[in-house]
Amino acid sequence: MTLIDNGLEILSPQQCRDLLERGTVGRIAVNVGALPAIFPVNYTILRDRIVFLTGDGTKLRAAVDRAVVAFQIDHFDEASGSGWSVMAIGLAEEIRDPEELRAAEQLELRPFAGGERRHFVKINPEFVSGRRIV
Amino acid sequence: MTLIDNGLEILSPQQCRDLLERGTVGRIAVNVGALPAIFPVNYTILRDRIVFLTGDGTKLRAAVDRAVVAFQIDHFDEASGSGWSVMAIGLAEEIRDPEELRAAEQLELRPFAGGERRHFVKINPEFVSGRRIV
Repeated sequence: MTLIDNGLEILSPQQCRDLLERGTVGRIAVNVGALPAIFPVNYTILRDRIVFLTGDGTKLRAAVDRAVVAFQIDHFDEASGSGWSVMAIGLAEEIRDPEELRAAEQLELRPFAGGERRHFVKINPEFVSGRRIV
Repeated sequence: MTLIDNGLEILSPQQCRDLLERGTVGRIAVNVGALPAIFPVNYTILRDRIVFLTGDGTKLRAAVDRAVVAFQIDHFDEASGSGWSVMAIGLAEEIRDPEELRAAEQLELRPFAGGERRHFVKINPEFVSGRRIV
């Protein structure tokens, strides 16, 4: 059964997780001070958590630690007008546990951008939703 | 002169506006109740405002009207590891002025998704920033 929401097919939780597993670039929405902001990040999945790197003293690092954030990935093809998006909402926190840090350091997590990014942040996706253009 | 921020080239306001003019799909970060959320939208620029359509009774329509939102576009090429992103922050509000509505209706604004979307929303980008991978 396919559920439709305002012209969009609702993806199942499993479809959302599959798309999250395959992605490499996502976006995080957080509040920085009183203002909303969106940051693109390279990410991967570790033990069902979304994991990415931040740099010392960045706005992103300050904003995400122990904050509820939205993480989103999508893909749109302008020529065909097709596409999908998946959003995960959950608590973000820096990885500090030594064993978990070692596991994170084994990940193939290579930010496109240069600059030093040494702090692993994980998001526990408590709510996941997705839509596909039909 | 090229300014660098944590391994990323800082784009000028003009470069940001040029990229916004050329885009067709962006993402909006808003709070829905107490939770952050990100919605992809088809958009265009009208009189320096970011304009997109929402449907009756959608979460997006309720969340953006007279709210300060973040709007973001980006492009990443995984093969080359190149890419850029631009973010605009500003007050969003539904277009209600009849003359402005007529102008919006002339726009080539075709949402990829089906479903009825009849409400034009504009974002006044009071703060614009962008980064490019170097």
